[in-house]
Parts: sequence; C-alpha cells; structure tokens
Amino acid sequence: MEKISIITVGGTIDKIYFDAKSEYEVGPPNIEKVLGELNLSIRYRVMPLLRKDSLDMTDEDRSLIYETVEKDPSDKILITHGTDTMVKTARYLNNINNKTIILTGALEPALFKTSDALFNIGCALGALQAVEKGCYIAMNGKIFPADNVKKNVKESRFENLKGNLS
Amino acid sequence: MEKISIITVGGTIDKIYFDAKSEYEVGPPNIEKVLGELNLSIRYRVMPLLRKDSLDMTDEDRSLIYETVEKDPSDKILITHGTDTMVKTARYLNNINNKTIILTGALEPALFKTSDALFNIGCALGALQAVEKGCYIAMNGKIFPADNVKKNVKESRFENLKGNLS
Amino acid sequence: MEKISIITVGGTIDKIYFDAKSEYEVGPPNIEKVLGELNLSIRYRVMPLLRKDSLDMTDEDRSLIYETVEKDPSDKILITHGTDTMVKTARYLNNINNKTIILTGALEPALFKTSDALFNIGCALGALQAVEKGCYIAMNGKIFPADNVKKNVKESRFENLKGNLS
Amino acid sequence: MEKISIITVGGTIDKIYFDAKSEYEVGPPNIEKVLGELNLSIRYRVMPLLRKDSLDMTDEDRSLIYETVEKDPSDKILITHGTDTMVKTARYLNNINNKTIILTGALEPALFKTSDALFNIGCALGALQAVEKGCYIAMNGKIFPADNVKKNVKESRFENLKGNLS
Repeated sequence: MEKISIITVGGTIDKIYFDAKSEYEVGPPNIEKVLGELNLSIRYRVMPLLRKDSLDMTDEDRSLIYETVEKDPSDKILITHGTDTMVKTARYLNNINNKTIILTGALEPALFKTSDALFNIGCALGALQAVEKGCYIAMNGKIFPADNVKKNVKESRFENLKGNLS
Repeated sequence: MEKISIITVGGTIDKIYFDAKSEYEVGPPNIEKVLGELNLSIRYRVMPLLRKDSLDMTDEDRSLIYETVEKDPSDKILITHGTDTMVKTARYLNNINNKTIILTGALEPALFKTSDALFNIGCALGALQAVEKGCYIAMNGKIFPADNVKKNVKESRFENLKGNLS
Repeated sequence: MEKISIITVGGTIDKIYFDAKSEYEVGPPNIEKVLGELNLSIRYRVMPLLRKDSLDMTDEDRSLIYETVEKDPSDKILITHGTDTMVKTARYLNNINNKTIILTGALEPALFKTSDALFNIGCALGALQAVEKGCYIAMNGKIFPADNVKKNVKESRFENLKGNLS
Repeated sequence: MEKISIITVGGTIDKIYFDAKSEYEVGPPNIEKVLGELNLSIRYRVMPLLRKDSLDMTDEDRSLIYETVEKDPSDKILITHGTDTMVKTARYLNNINNKTIILTGALEPALFKTSDALFNIGCALGALQAVEKGCYIAMNGKIFPADNVKKNVKESRFENLKGNLS
C-alpha cells in the first residue's frame, strides 16, 4: 500500500494549555505522537503545514492547503483541521478529483482524557483505505461526503445536511 | 444509513482486573461505554454474544458467531474479538458473501491508558462504511482482507501474509 | 476522624474547554468527581465557593475565603485554588491559628491526561491528617509553610523562598 | 529537606499485561516514571528491591525489606507494596522506631485509566513529610498507623480495625 500523507493545519485537536497565560493555543501536531505509539502497519508521513484555530483560517490558507494537496506525491491524504470551518475547507478541496482526501479533527483537545481525537483519526484512516476518490469529512463516527455535511454547533456534532442519522 | 450491528465476543479489549484475585478476566463489552461517550452520528446496536479469551474459543463458538452474523438484520457488522484467533474467525466468516463484516479488538485492554481500543474501533467503523462486501480485519491502522492477514505475535502486530508494509 | 472540609475557589484545576467558543473557562469543581471515584476511607464534604481564574481573584474574594474558613465547623480544611495567586491567599489565611489549612491546585487542568491534579489532591489530603495547625501549600510533591513558598513561574513549579530543593 | 527513599517490592500497582500470555505480571516499578513526569520539588531516590505479587511474599522477603529500611541512609521511607499482605509487612516494620515509614500501593494497576496509584503515592508523600516517626499505611485517602489497619477485601478498601470511618 502506498504511503498516506497526513497534513496538519491546526484546530482544537492540537490545542494546548499554557499556565502562565492561562490560554489554550494551537500546539504542534498531536497526531505524530499518537500514531507513533500505535505500532501501525501502514506507512505514512506527517507534514505540519499550518497551526491555526479554524476560525482564523483565511482564503489564502485554503489556497495553500489546496496547492499542497495537489502537489503531494500521495493520492491518499488525511488532513487534521479545526472543526468550525472544516466543512468550508472540505468543499473547497472537493474540486480535486484524482485523490482521496479525508478531513478530521476533534471536538476536545487530544490532550484531554475524554478527547475524541484518537477515535476520529482511526475512523479517518480506516475510511481512507476504502472510499472512492473525492473529499470527505470523518467526524462523530461517520464518513460524510464534502457536499453533504454541516456542523451542528449546538449539539457539537457533524451531521448530514438534512439532519443527524439521515 | 442503516443501523450497524456490533457483536462482542470477548478478548483482550474487554479484560478487567480483579484485585481480590490478583488476576484479569474478560468483562462486559467496553465498546458500549466507549461509543456512548462519543456522541456519534451513526446508528448502531451492541449485541454481547460471548465473553471469551480468544485462545479459549471453540469451533462451536465460531459456528455461533457465523449463524448470528447470517441472521442479523443489518448487512454491516462489526465484531470485537480477541486477537490470538481473530484471523481464524475472520477466515471462517469469509464464506458469508452478502454482508460487510469487520473484526477488530485490542492488543492492550481498553481500560489501559495506552490502549489501542478506541483507535481500532474508529478504524473499523470508518472502513465499515466504505469497503465492499466481504470479511476484513481492522488492526494496527490497516484494513486487511480476511485471506491476507496474520498476527505477528513477536511484534504484537497484524500484517499481510507477506509481511508488514507490503 | 472528623470530617474534612474541601472548599473550591476555581483555578486551572477546574478549567474546561468549550468547543463552540474555542476557549476555556473555569468549570464546576473537579475534586468531587475525582474523590467520588476513589472509594475513600475519610469523611469529607465539598463546598464550591468561587469559580475564578486566580489572576481575577480580588481582596473581597480573599476575605470571603477567610470568613468561610473561620466559620467552617471542621478544623481541617483543604482549598483548591488557582496557582498564580495561591501564595497570596495562603499568606492571608496564615493568620488563622486554630485550624489546619492546606491549599492545592494544578498546573494542568484535571481533565488533561497528564494533569498533576490527582497527585496534588492526594498529597494535600495526606498532609492534612498529619501537619500541625497552620496554613500550608501542597504542590509539586512538597508541603510548604505559607510563609516559605513562592511560585517559580518560569519553571512552572512551587519552591521554597530560597529556591528549589532547599 | 533530606532525600526520601522509595523502595519498591511489587504488587498490583506494578502489574502489567502481556498479550502473548494473556496474563498480568509484576513489571518494573511504575513510580519512577510517574514521579519523573511531575516536576517535583522534593528530592528522592527509587530503589527497586523486589517484584512480587503480595500473596507470594515470604518471611524472607519481609526480613530483606526490614534490613533494607534499617540500613537506608534516609529516615523517611516510602514503600510501594501489594495490598493483600501490606498490613502484615507494616506490622513487621513497626518495630523500627527511628524512621518514618509509609507503605502504599494500588487497588488497580497504575497503567489503568482509573488507577488509584497516583493519588495514593501523593497521599503517602504528603504524609511522609509530616507524621511522627513510626510505620503507617496510606491507602484510600487515609493515613493509618500500622497497628490500626486492615484490608476489607470485600469492599476493596483499607479501614481501621473497628471499621471504616471510625
């Protein structure tokens, strides 16, 4: 199996806590440490690209991600991304037709005991090996096509456009 | 999306520790608690079928699993299973052609801080929504067809028959 | 043994993360949940008094804590408090002579996998049963008298006034 | 403050899980790793002495522990020990009059997410800095004198001889 490319752009999944300033900031990509401890049987490389809260992500950032994905030698791409604008980035990348792209992230920082990060990364990697080419979001245990997904902020959950469980 | 059926048959993933006896036993399925905390957007039911260390699993047990999968109303089945004979059970279930079946488990009990359980379950659920009908094993981040997988006991890792990373 | 009173006033130990706002806030006291799971052989009550980042704590807040400690029916008092002004509050409470008062907290939120909260609470409770009357800080594994302790912000560690390990 | 000596003799606190054999065994002392991550302000050394399930501990083992404590240059000694015979060892060491000795351990292995190990070690270290010379057990949040403690196996909790909370 070819090597999977993992591109990290920031988001809650990589939020850390600074005592001195008592603020969370986006730290280095947690996925490298997480996967390194799991003794995986897949080959992958991690490429830290941005380190942004997703609310701060600009059109220039999305262009950069687009170009990075296009130029990447692999055609299986996992992107860890903040959840608030993950859908927007997914739709933007949906124009790339010759690769399989899955975006994931976390609703709680990976450093939290109850974080969904490890589960979401697993879910994304499992799907990445099986779905057809195109762009998807893997969140809340479900693989969503980029054109049929929204974040339900109130419920803190990703859903299909017509609502959960549809 | 139809409801996914999750059948649990025991294994390391569900090992718990009894202080009074200073030993472990296979406890109730951990997956129900784990998924319940994740606020998922998929529908599933958990069916506890057996509670066995996989080394103790008999041909009768495998027949029971086979029949349970065949009769199950869902055609997407996740099975949590001990790792030592997971490959044997997967090959046995590989004769079922009209369903998607994925077996997973854990190399460390789900109650351990460093367990691979949550990641493996995510990986299996992600693949279950995308792979073609047939029987697979989701372990160590990889989706293996039932007829091309072995457990490398020394490395504590699942691999293709011709070795890791092939 | 008499019942121990646990007064919570906020701080990093109780920081939680709101995904919707991409920021943290001081949540309800974590110590009640933590101790409730530990099957303790001591009797205690938890009294949530304030829910403040310690940098926001005012002289009025300190007066309130002082009066609450004085009026408390127990003479063994544990206080969970933010770390940035814990020393200031400890010196203030050091004027109470007829009780044993120990302040503790955490340098990482209790919800973090690597938090020092559980260890610090244990350390404070162990000392509370043995030290003479007076006011102390239990942090970084050490029991400091209120008049011989400082927070070394750079090292993120509490130390004696003359430096660590003295 | 003088350096604390930490002597490890095994027990549940250090139980690990071997997948190949599907058995828990007593591994290397977990306390060294745990304390190393906590950035402590106390000085200590860890001395791994035995690696035994406490049910397997013999009179020779207890003699060895006794001699090791007596010869130790520190007069503040923390011992991590299995819980089933911790009381027996504590009574044996109670004949040493010129040192402060505290035994602790865990009812769940330290590698478990819900282990009491970190809390118990904190509790023991907090008390070690404050109690009078003598031998004690620190378990379930309480500091017990060696001659007034029993393990209530059914409740999986240490108590005074006359029962819990007395």
